[in-house]
Amino acid sequence: MKHRGILAVVSGFSGAGKGTLMKNLVNQYDNYALSISMTTRLPREGEEDGREYFFVSKETFEEKVGQGGLIEYACYCDNYYGTPKEYVENQLAMGRDVLLEIEIQGALKVREKFPEALLLFVMPPSAKELENRLTGRGTETPEVVSKRLRRAVSEAQGIENYDYIVINDDLEMCTQELHSIICTAHKSVGRNEEFIENMRQELNVLVKGEK
Amino acid sequence: MKHRGILAVVSGFSGAGKGTLMKNLVNQYDNYALSISMTTRLPREGEEDGREYFFVSKETFEEKVGQGGLIEYACYCDNYYGTPKEYVENQLAMGRDVLLEIEIQGALKVREKFPEALLLFVMPPSAKELENRLTGRGTETPEVVSKRLRRAVSEAQGIENYDYIVINDDLEMCTQELHSIICTAHKSVGRNEEFIENMRQELNVLVKGEK
Repeated sequence: MKHRGILAVVSGFSGAGKGTLMKNLVNQYDNYALSISMTTRLPREGEEDGREYFFVSKETFEEKVGQGGLIEYACYCDNYYGTPKEYVENQLAMGRDVLLEIEIQGALKVREKFPEALLLFVMPPSAKELENRLTGRGTETPEVVSKRLRRAVSEAQGIENYDYIVINDDLEMCTQELHSIICTAHKSVGRNEEFIENMRQELNVLVKGEK
Repeated sequence: MKHRGILAVVSGFSGAGKGTLMKNLVNQYDNYALSISMTTRLPREGEEDGREYFFVSKETFEEKVGQGGLIEYACYCDNYYGTPKEYVENQLAMGRDVLLEIEIQGALKVREKFPEALLLFVMPPSAKELENRLTGRGTETPEVVSKRLRRAVSEAQGIENYDYIVINDDLEMCTQELHSIICTAHKSVGRNEEFIENMRQELNVLVKGEK
């Protein structure tokens, strides 16, 4: 049953562990392609073009928008961020499942263009645990922690737009759960119309051959 | 996340291996309860009351129908067959996932009463393989094989009413796939409203406590 890949959109609170989960999926299974965003912001130290982001000029970005080459884009802190369409389309056509880490507003825009996309929301086991993780990094000021928690409050309002929630308590288990949800989606009746139709035809041929 | 169990309705062509799959699920995982049908037909040799079926008189069956005690029932070869409601309801309330093996018409009636039921359809890898399995049993006359194939043709028309199809090529793998589909269903947003609402309240408390 080789068919079109699934576009899995992954969102979740900052501190829920999305980034590590995406890396785990790509490293542990061979059906995934990671969608890489395009941005006009400058690369930070250690960031590589084509790995963290495609770093482009404002002109190139706007040209891409004009050509309809982005699935969605947004402006954040004076910089553009967007999802290049061609890569996603190509990977899906080759039967690979594409992982797209994106915040809620972007996720909803993706669903408009790809109604069959699978929307997954990663959550910590509790709000207290989220706070612990954000504080425990030791790299964030109390103001940043507080800002992220307030952002989580606002993002939590949109969870009903998603298909599944995954609780990231144990990283390994959560990786497996995400994989399992995406594998399950491949078995939906809607994604197997061709197989079902072939089966019907084969059965008809068998029954007619008997007579 | 302890919540209500899932009613998993399993259908599929005769010869697809449903019975063995149900047994495997119950034996290998501890979250399942097998729904046992009630019938007015006489027990066959080796069958036990409460294991294969609940064997009852026509009067008892009709009384049960009158009390609304069956989720669905049908008359087949002059005998009644039905699904007792109380057992299913109790198990779901205790958080156990209930497996119900039933043909298409029954499955659709179940969905009317339990719209959140998960409808799974088990298929052989190909029509030819189905024929081989039916013939290979060695116990069926060509007439019976032919009748089952014709029944498969008619049942195949209803597959679009199901949520997922599972291909039974390798029994062990198919058991795991069924289990995985049911586990995935537990993670749907709709089945986790309470958890999501709690998370929102906890986040609100945290953010307010900070000020």
